[in-house]
Amino acid sequence: MENVVRLTPGNKKQPNALGVLAQLLQHEMNGVNDVILRRMESHVHLIPQLAGHLINSGGKRLRPLLTIATSHMCGYDGGREINLAACIEFIHTATLLHDDVVDESNLRRGQATANTVWGNQASVLVGDYLFSRSFQMIAEDGSIEVVKVLADTSTALSEGEVLQLTASHDVDTSEETYLRVIDAKTAALFAAACKVGGIVADASKSDKDALQSYGRNLGIAFQLVDDALDYSAKQATLRKAVGDDFKEGKITLPIILAYRRGSEEDRKFWRRTLAQKDQRDGDLETALAMMNEHGTLVDTIARAQHYGAMAKDALGIFPKSELREALINIVDFCIERAY
Amino acid sequence: MENVVRLTPGNKKQPNALGVLAQLLQHEMNGVNDVILRRMESHVHLIPQLAGHLINSGGKRLRPLLTIATSHMCGYDGGREINLAACIEFIHTATLLHDDVVDESNLRRGQATANTVWGNQASVLVGDYLFSRSFQMIAEDGSIEVVKVLADTSTALSEGEVLQLTASHDVDTSEETYLRVIDAKTAALFAAACKVGGIVADASKSDKDALQSYGRNLGIAFQLVDDALDYSAKQATLRKAVGDDFKEGKITLPIILAYRRGSEEDRKFWRRTLAQKDQRDGDLETALAMMNEHGTLVDTIARAQHYGAMAKDALGIFPKSELREALINIVDFCIERAY
Repeated sequence: MENVVRLTPGNKKQPNALGVLAQLLQHEMNGVNDVILRRMESHVHLIPQLAGHLINSGGKRLRPLLTIATSHMCGYDGGREINLAACIEFIHTATLLHDDVVDESNLRRGQATANTVWGNQASVLVGDYLFSRSFQMIAEDGSIEVVKVLADTSTALSEGEVLQLTASHDVDTSEETYLRVIDAKTAALFAAACKVGGIVADASKSDKDALQSYGRNLGIAFQLVDDALDYSAKQATLRKAVGDDFKEGKITLPIILAYRRGSEEDRKFWRRTLAQKDQRDGDLETALAMMNEHGTLVDTIARAQHYGAMAKDALGIFPKSELREALINIVDFCIERAY
Repeated sequence: MENVVRLTPGNKKQPNALGVLAQLLQHEMNGVNDVILRRMESHVHLIPQLAGHLINSGGKRLRPLLTIATSHMCGYDGGREINLAACIEFIHTATLLHDDVVDESNLRRGQATANTVWGNQASVLVGDYLFSRSFQMIAEDGSIEVVKVLADTSTALSEGEVLQLTASHDVDTSEETYLRVIDAKTAALFAAACKVGGIVADASKSDKDALQSYGRNLGIAFQLVDDALDYSAKQATLRKAVGDDFKEGKITLPIILAYRRGSEEDRKFWRRTLAQKDQRDGDLETALAMMNEHGTLVDTIARAQHYGAMAKDALGIFPKSELREALINIVDFCIERAY
């Protein structure tokens, strides 16, 4: 693994695909940041203070970037894409605020979570604010089609989060249920970010469908890699703790595969640590050893590559362009984060 | 007080104004209930289970009733009002779910709150779901004006909740700040419920403004009465505990007035119990005695009557009708709950 070329943000010599795309769309992304800063304002000072803590914490702005890139690839750069990209980042930020409350997380992007600093109550309410604000901005944009896409998406998102909550600690969760969860909680917003790019560009139905498919499959690949990364030493470089999902009893694919491939003895271990929530010193190490034994982290990445391939092929119907290449390379970037 | 005629739901002899209105619009309100039940469905069973717990707990359905009544008063009964009334009840229900998490409430409408039964996490996420679902239904209705009104409202709502949170335990909160809070957290949705009735009826701008003003002032009056009721023995008949606001350090008008009208000794008491959160046995009784001494509960109701009068006058520009009378009587109903 050591001699694999690292295509991650840490590599300064060769700009990664995300950096390339952000560079190409730097002007628009500055516009997105301006809109975000302007629209998170409120006379209630706690709102921009708390929201800004998360918004300025160095997120990748991947979702707004997808909206800008897809709209430009389809020939539109009239400005609506900038406001809508900011809306999508607001929806994403709102879900992160609520997620951290639900997961009782203390750390995100290497800094204390908003709920740790200002309490769960404020995080819930400021999440509601950002979410409402985004629908206000969507209404200002004026397209009922965009309202529909993003309302459908946020419904799916919250449905996915509830499903994940009910599946937590349930070691019998199937890969199918897991896929439904990540489709709803992650891929739906990636899909919407891309579809909205097509909508503002007034793209044909088949082009919008292709963009949605690209986004959805990219989102699934992205979440699969995230769930593998949670158990990887690479996490440390991402300023996250290793094994948070295990500690929270979150049933992700690396565990689902390990449970299904393991011995009866292994399953007893998974049931004790996850279903019965009885975790002791050394259990995380045992869990990691079992995952390695059954190759479940490597296979989770292999699954991600499958969805990544579908994402790339979805873009095949668009004419060759610098932006199309950049979007295709984003897929590899998301997967190669794992190495 | 004992020989005052009681115009509350408890009085079976004479139907109250809410009952009269609900009776007049029974067919439509059954339609609203059907839409609510149908649209809170999800393949994730916890969602209808948790949402249904609150939705079926005997709320007054006052907000949807306002939407139906105002649209009919303006001559519209084409069906859109039913779906949008259900949306508004969803937004209201979502805020109640989040409120109960934020306030750490155990009891609502005489039964255990959803957060007590299913935990804060599920309540936050199902609140998000209902909120998203309502925007999905608004998008299906197809009017960008309605999207705008309800997105503005929910932004105001969450802003009001954050403002209330930052003002909690702050005994220096002014009546003006308090009014801003209740305007945002309660009156805005009443105003929107009424304005949406006018929008679907394609009413003139001045009619829509009048409906909005009726709703806003009614909402302020409603919340003022609610905040007085929190300290009234009448609470017991509403299946709520007396003095919850005091225990939570929520600074409402009865306290604001008592603090401003009280002696330096009184203020020491308010600072200890509310700002320093040092509450002891007998403190609630002392607080109630101080409120009575300065007539702050009676005066909170007097303030409510002022806003109630504005609400009634706002309807003056509409032709006389059974529905207009019923809407005017709703104002008295909301205020007379206090007796």
